[in-house]
Parts: sequence; C-alpha cells; structure tokens
Amino acid sequence: MADKIAIIGLGLIGGSIGLGLTAARKRDKSLNIEIVGHDRLPENASKAKRLGAIDKVEWNLLAAVDRAAMVVIATPVLAVRAVMEQIADTLANGATVTDTASTKADVLQWANEILPDYVTFVGGHPMAGKELPGVENADAELFKDAVWCLCPGIHAEQSRVDVVSAFVEVMGGKPYFVDPHEHDGLVAGISHLPIVLASALVGATTADPAWREMRKLAASGYRDTTRLASGEPQMNVDICLTNRGPLLGWIDRYIEELQHYRTLIAQGQEGAEALAKEFIRVQMERDHWAYGKKDGDGQEPVQKISLGQMLMGDRFNRLTEYIRQGERKRS
Amino acid sequence: MADKIAIIGLGLIGGSIGLGLTAARKRDKSLNIEIVGHDRLPENASKAKRLGAIDKVEWNLLAAVDRAAMVVIATPVLAVRAVMEQIADTLANGATVTDTASTKADVLQWANEILPDYVTFVGGHPMAGKELPGVENADAELFKDAVWCLCPGIHAEQSRVDVVSAFVEVMGGKPYFVDPHEHDGLVAGISHLPIVLASALVGATTADPAWREMRKLAASGYRDTTRLASGEPQMNVDICLTNRGPLLGWIDRYIEELQHYRTLIAQGQEGAEALAKEFIRVQMERDHWAYGKKDGDGQEPVQKISLGQMLMGDRFNRLTEYIRQGERKRS
Repeated sequence: MADKIAIIGLGLIGGSIGLGLTAARKRDKSLNIEIVGHDRLPENASKAKRLGAIDKVEWNLLAAVDRAAMVVIATPVLAVRAVMEQIADTLANGATVTDTASTKADVLQWANEILPDYVTFVGGHPMAGKELPGVENADAELFKDAVWCLCPGIHAEQSRVDVVSAFVEVMGGKPYFVDPHEHDGLVAGISHLPIVLASALVGATTADPAWREMRKLAASGYRDTTRLASGEPQMNVDICLTNRGPLLGWIDRYIEELQHYRTLIAQGQEGAEALAKEFIRVQMERDHWAYGKKDGDGQEPVQKISLGQMLMGDRFNRLTEYIRQGERKRS
Repeated sequence: MADKIAIIGLGLIGGSIGLGLTAARKRDKSLNIEIVGHDRLPENASKAKRLGAIDKVEWNLLAAVDRAAMVVIATPVLAVRAVMEQIADTLANGATVTDTASTKADVLQWANEILPDYVTFVGGHPMAGKELPGVENADAELFKDAVWCLCPGIHAEQSRVDVVSAFVEVMGGKPYFVDPHEHDGLVAGISHLPIVLASALVGATTADPAWREMRKLAASGYRDTTRLASGEPQMNVDICLTNRGPLLGWIDRYIEELQHYRTLIAQGQEGAEALAKEFIRVQMERDHWAYGKKDGDGQEPVQKISLGQMLMGDRFNRLTEYIRQGERKRS
C-alpha cells in the first residue's frame, strides 16, 4: 500500500513540493507514495490537481491528514498554528509532520504545545522562492540545491527526522539543521529585512506624484530590488508578527547603515573616497557570496537511503541502523 | 566611405552598443559604418575587439574621435567631462556626440560649456543594465525595448538629434526625450536610490558576526534585492556626486517610509491590519508596474528613416524633410 503524504496549503511552495514529489516518484519506482492535497481555497486545490502536483484533492482537512505517514503544512506562519490545532487529534500514531513557514521559533513552540507526543514534528524552511506566488507558478525544480532549514521538535524521533531529510533531498534540497531561534535571527537579516526594504521602496516611489513618469524609466534594477514586494501579503504580515524582535533589530541597524551612506553622499567630493571604499567593499562581498560560494556550504547530507525505502516496510524503525551502516556521501 | 562611429569607454554599455551596432549592420546593408573603440584600459579595448563589438581599436583617444560622424562616450559620469575636455578641439565640424552616463544635468552643463558650437550633443541614458559589469558581459540585445533617455544640448541641430534617435532605435531602444534636471529627479528614485539601498543591505548584513551562517541561508530574495551592489563602484560614486540633491531627498523619504513600517511592525497584532494594507498596496503597485505595463509607455518613435540612410549622403541635412514627410509609426 502506498504511503500517504498530505500537503496542506497549495501555493507556490506546497505546489512545488507536490510537483517535486511526483517527479521523484517517476524517477524512482520504489517511492510508493500517494500525494493528497488540501487548501482553504478549493480553486487552489483544483489547480494543483490539474497541474499534477497532487494525486487527489481532499476537500476536508481532517480527511487529508487521516492515516497520512507524512503531513506537510505549507501555509503562511500563523495558519500553521490553526492547522496544528485542527489536525492534532486526527494525526496517526507515528506520523511525521513538517512545515515550510518562514519563521521557526513560534512554530516549534506551537508544535511542542499542540501536537501529540507520538507525532514527530520537524519544522522546515526551504530557502527558495520566486517572484510570483501561487500554485500556478509552482516548479518541481524550485528546491534544487536550495538550503532547507530543519528544526526537530522536542518529541522528534531521529528515524523520522531522517525521513524529513530524505524528503528534502528527494526534491534536490540540502538539509540544514539549525536551532529555531538561531534560524529566525539569521533569516531576519537576509530574508525578512529585504522584504520590508523592497516594500518600502515600492511604497515610497509609487506614492510620488512623479511616479507616472518614473514608472516608464524604471528598469531591471528597480525590478530586481523590488521583487520581494510582489510576495504574498499575508505571508509577509505573518513573518513580521512572528519574527518581530530580530526584524526590528535589523531595521534599526539598516537605517544606521543607510544614514552612514547619506552622510558620505552629503559630503560630496570630501566623502567620495570613503564612499568609494564602501561601494568597493560591498561589491566584493556580494560577488564573493554570489559567485564564490563553495560547494558544501550546506551541511552534509545525513543519510543515503531513498525516501521510498524509508517510507516503506515497517515505517522508519529500521532506518537508524541503515544510516549508521551507510557511508556518508554528498548527494 | 563608411561613417565612423567612435565608442569611448568599452564596459558593459559601450560594449553592448558596439555589439548592437554590428548586429544592426549585419541586418541592414545600408548601414555603412566603421566602429572604432577606445578605452583607458587597453585590455578592455582588446576584449571588445575580440568579442566583435568594434571593428578597430584606437589606442589614442584623439585618433578615435578624429573625423568621427558620431562619438559615444560610455564612461562613468565624471569621466565624461574629462573626455569632453580632451576631444573638444579634435571633433569634426558637424559631429554628433552622445553619452550614456546615469545623470544628465551636470553632463549637459559640461557639454554646453566645453564642446564647440558646431557639434551636436545629445545626452543619453539607456535604462538597461545587468548584474555584472564589464565588456565581457556585453550583449547586443541589452537595449531591446529599453527606454533610452535623451537630452539635447543647447547647440543641438534637430536633424542630428534625429540621428541619435535612430541610433537608439537601431539597437532596439525607445527614445524618451526629457529635461536633464527632470531626468535626474526621476532616476534618483527608481535607479540611484536602489543602488544605495542594495549597497547598504550588503554592508549591514556582511558586517554581522553571523554572516558566516547567514550567507548559507541567503537565497534568491537576497540575491535580487542586493543585485545593484555588484555594479561598478566608480559608476556608483559618480552617480552620488552628480545627483546628490535628488538622491539625498529620496534617501530621507525612504527612511521615513521604513520608519513607518518599523512602527507598524513594533505594534505587533495591533499594527497588523495597517501593515497588511501596506503589503497589499505595494504588491498591487509593483505587479501593475511589472506586468500591467502598457505598450507605448515610452514616447513614440520620432522618425522612420534608417540610421544607415541618415549617416549616408550629405550627412543629415536631408533628414528633416524626410521626417516631416514620413508617417509616424511604432517600431
């Protein structure tokens, strides 16, 4: 019998996970899974089915997670809590639950409080995105080589944590285990601050009386710098609410940095040398990051048994042994 | 005899202009031009020749512009002035000079002061760019459908202004005539402010002790938001120096906007609704800009005689008549 994987929330991420799993199943016949999907909005679920991201739509949330070996909650952060509360009593003994929300400290706290002990929760956050949200932009390749943060809950069993690692790797992602509070601090600077910056840039420019003319001249630089302003508004609000402290800290530091640039620019020729040094430094730093990235910046893959093998048989309990026997190798 | 076009400064823009012109010449045999190139750094000129962006390298700046029908100064802003001073006495009577620098008010003032009256200067600014600078990233298609700002100087003859329009269109660009001060105000918000914002983001994040970890998690959102920090440092310094007033104004307004976001985020649940409204508004505004852009947002093409026809014959003087006769049509 096929193992059931339920995807709750069929947007860009949930849809891409579905497509990634169906692609993996095509490549690897041992991956005997049934992918069911549920979305608050029926049209999203229908679209996901039509796109081949899921095998079956479940209009009822509880029916979706009932007897599922794995549940993937791919909603904005605050909805993760609501979904957990609704599904807690229906989850199968031994089920593995993960999510894909952008912040992890609150999510892990909710999982620890709400989910039963006999369920393994591993919070997840794939570091991948696209300009446009929605299942219609889903892509089986979205997670290829993407770092995928993983935060096991307090009741997590190691063998099932390994299942989540394998789940990530089967879609091309690189598991990266991290403490949830550390995660939130790190992504506040490189992911959540940029969302606010891009939004403020669109906010300030489009409110200008000259926007009618400016919009004609705005080109690829503006397009790229503002890309994150096209993200899902609800997702962005939830991020701000659940990662408030670290994000506010980053906004303050950013304003300081911007004031520093302002000071140098205001000095004109006098500040030019210091300004040049800043532009040279950030060019080097960014190019080093973007082009000098070494292989293996992500953590090493934890195991090498296929997800199919993992989900098969007596569900997970033989795994730990396999893993200890297996040699580590880079995927 | 072929008309000589001299490109001074063979970086991404100068190189792309060269490639655009050679591609146009291949398509249109009536475009009888010789493209010579000069760069302060001999290796850039050699690369441009090797890439087929220019027909001939001129190691000497004055030899490059000598007897040229058209001179294109494609250097950072401040170097435009130095080049004008050096070439002023060598420019042919009736030559057309243009540039591609990011600010226009200072450039037009220099042209009016430095260049002889018998030369037509039309300041130019193609609204196109790429993540990586340098002639090695030059692309004949870089200007396809790009708005190309044009600011005729005080001594400009209309027939030669039309030559510059044709020059822009032959590379796929859309001429957009604008007052130089208006130009600088407009691009300060949608081009120069984003450069400073991207640089400050790289500056703040890479200086953090946790950058070693953050860099592993940074993904496409960070990549896009910081893209402009990988631009040419000298170009960026020159932009700040020559567009100081408008840029400082925009930085101040941006900080206000960011403070507004900060206030709402700090309010937590209380500010959530107002924050959601902001995210919804900027998503709509950006999507409208990025995807709802109507055809013809650029100004209508001014003429429809080919650049080859224009440069040929008795150099330009028959043009005005042709243009008055010709029907306007969209390219």
